[in-house]
Amino acid sequence: MFVTPYMVRFADVDNAGIFYYPRFFHAFHVAFETWWERDVGRSYYQVIRKDRIGFPAVHIEVDFKRPVTFGDPMDIHVGVKRIGKTSVVFRYRFVHRETGEVHNEAEITKAIVDMDSFRPLQPPPEIRRALERIRIT
Amino acid sequence: MFVTPYMVRFADVDNAGIFYYPRFFHAFHVAFETWWERDVGRSYYQVIRKDRIGFPAVHIEVDFKRPVTFGDPMDIHVGVKRIGKTSVVFRYRFVHRETGEVHNEAEITKAIVDMDSFRPLQPPPEIRRALERIRIT
Amino acid sequence: MFVTPYMVRFADVDNAGIFYYPRFFHAFHVAFETWWERDVGRSYYQVIRKDRIGFPAVHIEVDFKRPVTFGDPMDIHVGVKRIGKTSVVFRYRFVHRETGEVHNEAEITKAIVDMDSFRPLQPPPEIRRALERIRIT
Amino acid sequence: MFVTPYMVRFADVDNAGIFYYPRFFHAFHVAFETWWERDVGRSYYQVIRKDRIGFPAVHIEVDFKRPVTFGDPMDIHVGVKRIGKTSVVFRYRFVHRETGEVHNEAEITKAIVDMDSFRPLQPPPEIRRALERIRIT
Repeated sequence: MFVTPYMVRFADVDNAGIFYYPRFFHAFHVAFETWWERDVGRSYYQVIRKDRIGFPAVHIEVDFKRPVTFGDPMDIHVGVKRIGKTSVVFRYRFVHRETGEVHNEAEITKAIVDMDSFRPLQPPPEIRRALERIRIT
Repeated sequence: MFVTPYMVRFADVDNAGIFYYPRFFHAFHVAFETWWERDVGRSYYQVIRKDRIGFPAVHIEVDFKRPVTFGDPMDIHVGVKRIGKTSVVFRYRFVHRETGEVHNEAEITKAIVDMDSFRPLQPPPEIRRALERIRIT
Repeated sequence: MFVTPYMVRFADVDNAGIFYYPRFFHAFHVAFETWWERDVGRSYYQVIRKDRIGFPAVHIEVDFKRPVTFGDPMDIHVGVKRIGKTSVVFRYRFVHRETGEVHNEAEITKAIVDMDSFRPLQPPPEIRRALERIRIT
Repeated sequence: MFVTPYMVRFADVDNAGIFYYPRFFHAFHVAFETWWERDVGRSYYQVIRKDRIGFPAVHIEVDFKRPVTFGDPMDIHVGVKRIGKTSVVFRYRFVHRETGEVHNEAEITKAIVDMDSFRPLQPPPEIRRALERIRIT
C-alpha cells in the first residue's frame, strides 16, 4: 500500500461545507501520479509520453461513508486489488490521519493500453513489480 | 428522462487527447443542476439554501465504454432508476448526439437529507413528482 | 460584442459563499470557446487542431468589483479591445443580467501563434474579420 | 519570501501540451494556503472560519513569459510587495527549479475583510508580522 497526505483545499469544499464529491476523483488521480513518482521512480509523464503506456479508467465503484470537511487531516491510501493480464484494479481510500476512519473508498479498474494504438497491453516487468508491491489482500 | 447538451471544453480533454475522467463527475453534477432549473422549475440553489434539502452522493458506479474527445457532440441523459424513502438513484449517460452511442454511464445513489441536521429526509411531494417524471425502466 | 449566459454552478461558489475567483478564468475561456462556435462558425477545436492556430495568454489584468454568488443570473460579455499584427486583446465582463452591473472585468492579451512552431502568426482574413466584428471602443 | 514546490499534474496540462492558464490561479491559491500552514502556523481554514478574516482578490495582473509543461520541476515563490492598512499585494512566481527562470508572475491585490460584515479590516499584529516576514523589495 502507498500512503500520501491530502491537504483539503479551500476550493475542495463546497458551499454546504463539505468536500464536493466530483473532486475526489481528481484527488485519487493525483495520488496515483504521486505513487509513480515516489514509489515507482518513474513519473506518469514519462510512462505516458516516453514509454507510451496509458491507464484509462474503465469501471469505478465508490462508497462515500463520511463527509470530508475543510481542515480534516486526511491521507489517501493507494493499493492494488487485482492484476489482470492487461488491466489492474486500484483501491483508493480517504482515511482520517488521526481517527483512522475511512471516509470514502473507490475501486478503479484501469485498462493498460498502448498509447499509440489504444490497444490492450501487457505491462513490462518493472511496472508489474511496482503494482505487486502495493498489492492488498 | 431529461436530456441536456454537453459541449466538450478545451480544458476537459487531457494531454492524451481524451476527456479526463475525473471531470465527468462535475459534468454529471452540472446536468443535475440544469435538471432542477429547467425541469423542476426550482434551482438547486433554492433547494439547498431555502428549502434546506441536500442530495449528497453515497454510492457511485460508472462504466466507461468509449472515450470522449474534443469536438464530440454529446448529450447527457439524466434519469431516475429507483426512488427510496430517503434516497434516490440517478442514472447519467454521456450519449453521442449523432451516433446515439453511450460513451459512459453512471449510477449515483444520493441520500436526501435535511441540510441543518444532515439527517435522512422524505422529500416533499413536488420533489417526488419531479423525480417520478424522469423515471426510467 | 458577444454575450453568452453564465449559470453560476454549485462548485463555483466557495465555502465563504462567493465565486472562487480562480474559476472565473475558466469561465472566460469557456465564453471564448462559445464565441468561436456561435459567432465565428468554427470551433476552437478546429482552429487549434486543423488550422493549427493557437491563442496563448501572455498578459492578464482583472478587476473584481462585486462578488458573484450562487443564483446570480450572469452574462459574460466578450469584446476585442485591440487587434495587433500577431496578438489580440480580449475584454471579458461578468455582468448581472438584471441590474446591468459589471461584477468583474478582465483584459486578456493573447498571442496568435502557429501551433507547430509556437511562432507568432498573422491571423487569416476570416479570423481577423471575426475579431473586428466584436470590437469595442 | 516563501517557496513551495509545485508538481505539474496530468490534468494541469491541456491538449496543446502546455499548462492550461486558468489553472495557475488555483495553483497560486494553494500556495497561499500552504504559506498559512507552514509559515504562519495557522491554517487558512482557521483564519476564515474561526478568526473570521478573509482575503478576497480585488485586482490581478499576470505576465506569462514561458509555458509550463508536464514534467517541469517548478516552485512557486510567494512574496508580499505592499502592505496597506486593509489590503495586501502578493506576488507569485512560477520558477523552474533547475534553470531559475521565471515562467510567469502574478500580482494579486487582496482586501482584508471581516467575514461577517465583508467590511475592510486592519489585520491583527500576528498576521501583519507574518506578511512582513515574506516582504520582497
